[in-house]
Amino acid sequence: MEFTINQLAGMLSGQVKGDGSEKITMLGKIQDAKKGQISFLSNPKYEQYIYTTNASAVIVSKDFVPRKELSTTLILVDDPYTSFTRLLEEYHKLVSFQKSGVEQPSFMGENSVIGKGFYRGAFSYIGNNVKIGDNAKIYPHVFVGDNVVIGNDTIIHAGVKIYADTRIGSNCVIHAGTVIGSDGFGFAPQEDGSYKTIPQLGTVVIEDDVAIGANTVIDCATLFGDATLIHKGVKLDNLIQIAHNVEVGSNTVIAAQSGISGSTKIGENCMFAGQVGIAGHLVVANNTSIGAQSGISKSIKDPGQRLLGYPAFDIGGYFKSYVVFKNLPEVNQRLRDLEKKVGSGESKSISVDH
Amino acid sequence: MEFTINQLAGMLSGQVKGDGSEKITMLGKIQDAKKGQISFLSNPKYEQYIYTTNASAVIVSKDFVPRKELSTTLILVDDPYTSFTRLLEEYHKLVSFQKSGVEQPSFMGENSVIGKGFYRGAFSYIGNNVKIGDNAKIYPHVFVGDNVVIGNDTIIHAGVKIYADTRIGSNCVIHAGTVIGSDGFGFAPQEDGSYKTIPQLGTVVIEDDVAIGANTVIDCATLFGDATLIHKGVKLDNLIQIAHNVEVGSNTVIAAQSGISGSTKIGENCMFAGQVGIAGHLVVANNTSIGAQSGISKSIKDPGQRLLGYPAFDIGGYFKSYVVFKNLPEVNQRLRDLEKKVGSGESKSISVDH
Amino acid sequence: MEFTINQLAGMLSGQVKGDGSEKITMLGKIQDAKKGQISFLSNPKYEQYIYTTNASAVIVSKDFVPRKELSTTLILVDDPYTSFTRLLEEYHKLVSFQKSGVEQPSFMGENSVIGKGFYRGAFSYIGNNVKIGDNAKIYPHVFVGDNVVIGNDTIIHAGVKIYADTRIGSNCVIHAGTVIGSDGFGFAPQEDGSYKTIPQLGTVVIEDDVAIGANTVIDCATLFGDATLIHKGVKLDNLIQIAHNVEVGSNTVIAAQSGISGSTKIGENCMFAGQVGIAGHLVVANNTSIGAQSGISKSIKDPGQRLLGYPAFDIGGYFKSYVVFKNLPEVNQRLRDLEKKVGSGESKSISVDH
Repeated sequence: MEFTINQLAGMLSGQVKGDGSEKITMLGKIQDAKKGQISFLSNPKYEQYIYTTNASAVIVSKDFVPRKELSTTLILVDDPYTSFTRLLEEYHKLVSFQKSGVEQPSFMGENSVIGKGFYRGAFSYIGNNVKIGDNAKIYPHVFVGDNVVIGNDTIIHAGVKIYADTRIGSNCVIHAGTVIGSDGFGFAPQEDGSYKTIPQLGTVVIEDDVAIGANTVIDCATLFGDATLIHKGVKLDNLIQIAHNVEVGSNTVIAAQSGISGSTKIGENCMFAGQVGIAGHLVVANNTSIGAQSGISKSIKDPGQRLLGYPAFDIGGYFKSYVVFKNLPEVNQRLRDLEKKVGSGESKSISVDH
Repeated sequence: MEFTINQLAGMLSGQVKGDGSEKITMLGKIQDAKKGQISFLSNPKYEQYIYTTNASAVIVSKDFVPRKELSTTLILVDDPYTSFTRLLEEYHKLVSFQKSGVEQPSFMGENSVIGKGFYRGAFSYIGNNVKIGDNAKIYPHVFVGDNVVIGNDTIIHAGVKIYADTRIGSNCVIHAGTVIGSDGFGFAPQEDGSYKTIPQLGTVVIEDDVAIGANTVIDCATLFGDATLIHKGVKLDNLIQIAHNVEVGSNTVIAAQSGISGSTKIGENCMFAGQVGIAGHLVVANNTSIGAQSGISKSIKDPGQRLLGYPAFDIGGYFKSYVVFKNLPEVNQRLRDLEKKVGSGESKSISVDH
Repeated sequence: MEFTINQLAGMLSGQVKGDGSEKITMLGKIQDAKKGQISFLSNPKYEQYIYTTNASAVIVSKDFVPRKELSTTLILVDDPYTSFTRLLEEYHKLVSFQKSGVEQPSFMGENSVIGKGFYRGAFSYIGNNVKIGDNAKIYPHVFVGDNVVIGNDTIIHAGVKIYADTRIGSNCVIHAGTVIGSDGFGFAPQEDGSYKTIPQLGTVVIEDDVAIGANTVIDCATLFGDATLIHKGVKLDNLIQIAHNVEVGSNTVIAAQSGISGSTKIGENCMFAGQVGIAGHLVVANNTSIGAQSGISKSIKDPGQRLLGYPAFDIGGYFKSYVVFKNLPEVNQRLRDLEKKVGSGESKSISVDH
């Protein structure tokens, strides 16, 4: 990007204080920014840096009153953080949309179509009967199986593997190495102790505005006509496991390395921290918040709970119990002392020292 | 697929009730199926749907007595679920075996051979001196290192990476993104606090009938001649870690995101739930069942145990302890009350409230 | 490799006892080794095998006094294990450096350079303005985004995905399927309950001598100029999550499936076992040792601690508490007995049996 400070201020409906003619080529942090860069000041604890920054311009609140002399140009706006984020987005768009057209060699099967403004990286593979919308970006080493449908403006990063029949909405982003539509984990025990594979013939449906991190796995549903369902606006982090027939409600956010077992239905607007595990065939209510590494073994019926533990219960209760847990050897000793005093010190009192 | 109802009934040794001449092209769930599809009724709670289904045919038990009029054709069999599963398998075979031949560009090194009826997807890479059996399917972006051996009827999905010298049996399925034969995590501490890499020169051996999910990792053994061993019939889910020199016994089933540390030997017919962790250099007896997120830090000597916890002990005991854990603040208060009553309330009594 | 025993002994400054003219082509374990192979004896409990081994040569301590007749040639050295490791390394070098040159098809963008002695596998993708040092190995299906810098002697295994602008040092090894530089998990909540993606514009910097396992993910930092930082000598295992803006200190070792949340700073020479989870925005002191599956929710200020639990505290304390935890139903019963005896058995005493 290359704009003058005046142009950026115009874009942000901000007011320039200082020399607005300088050219900006990059964004930077206030403490590190160099000449030619623009930064922002939102959190008062960073105010010190505005007096020493090398940034050519800093976006500040229109209420900002400098306490020392400034060598940088200011852009005054209502909300500096939001304004800076807008610039980030613009920059991001410039960067991520610079790739376009087809790099060779790449593979496209029969009867497949892709809309306008696309990018198809070298070594990308698109099967037969695939439909991809406008402005989609298919990075190198992506595999798109037969009959897949992908909406407009969706970005599929390098090496993503999408099995046949998957449907992905518009404006999604899927990061490198993620696998969508792999077989669910279904095996029927046989009399001789071995297992027979249950064919997995369902699909995965991912709605619009979904973001999925890297090396995550979403399995397909078991039966024809069924789909593992990721609703609109869901955000999944890296290395997550979504088993067959799971449903994740709109705008639910799940952090890295969490796993949802088969046929569980997660509500809307939930928030799960990292390494959470949820058993199969459960229902989790809307707005449920689950702390890191918790295990959920029963359905959560009441919405809006905050849970922690293994198995999880309310987060406040968990911490209270855990404080006593840390002191259990003393609790045990106090109990022994009492037993001695009261004269119930029979041999029943267990030794728990080793 | 395209068969008449009569043909399918013949295949299933079932009896047709209604018009058997209609053509079936797909399988479907009883509540969703459309004309031209076949479905099944096994669980009585779905009986309602048989009176309204659009399926052209429904497989039912020969004991089934309709309570209302039916517009669909019936196929009467001994066990509807099993019969439907057989159709699923047939369909699956048709679908998964429709790909064959070589797509270009693909890479095959020197002295490598592949049997009859294979599929080699575009951008698949097969190194030197590789031997692959009949009817193998090598999907796009698969990497097969030098000297690898793969048996008959094995399916390697898109983007699987198989390091040199790995051996994989017949009738295996490995899902997208899985890595087999990467270096074990071995580093020798040096005097200056740094680590020196211990070269990992063993291999991985995967026997017949093994299924492996997506984005799982199986490391190679450390020494020459040693192998990380996955025995016949093992089923591994997604995102699992199998460290160097691990051995997993026949027909053991491990759910997603579990991890087995180096040199641990897992018995046969074990069943581990998701996110289980097992320490290194242990032996786990046959038929051990381990609950989700459990940690195993000692060898399990007696077969057939059901374990839970961190570290794990018997599952019943864990839950009993956990019920008290949830009430620990009250236990602590009861102890204080007793101490007061008995007069032992010395300053020893710890405060555990914050 | 093909050397005589005498040549190998010379390499190791060892002394030959027996026929030194035989040719060695492989290394092997003392109990399994065949003719033409060399092995070693370090641990006395393996001494029995030296009398029956088929190895053509065995490296032993110069203090070793055989108690029976030997049919194998000995090489006497100061430290047999170290000597054997040196041979392993030499062998490894021979094997891993045998690939060189470019396999076709492969992709290299504009203005990109790669040093001497490289290997670029088929279907590898190198973007624009990339700089790669001497003796680098880029395996098949590797994706290297624009502007990436990679040092000398670094090995990037099959299917690794490296996003634009990442910097990787010299002498690093990155195993198959790992993703470096994917977007951090950053979303700003909107009033309607949905989330807006916060563009992730920072990078990842990996210093020299870093080893990274398979299918691990390292996210980029959020802001321009910021980097997720993996310092010199760090060893990361498989399936690890390193979130945006994390910093991992020199020579820290992290086992498989662990996850470090955003903006956390890990000290030097730490050692984390598998499946550890660390919350965001924390500081973990140098030399911290964390047991498997532990959860860290607060900063660790004092260096050198050994921690375990969820949340973690000192490992000895955890085990002491856990012993009582396993006996909590008995503790509860003893408390009830006391209450009865003392006469405080009011209805307050909770039932915890189901």
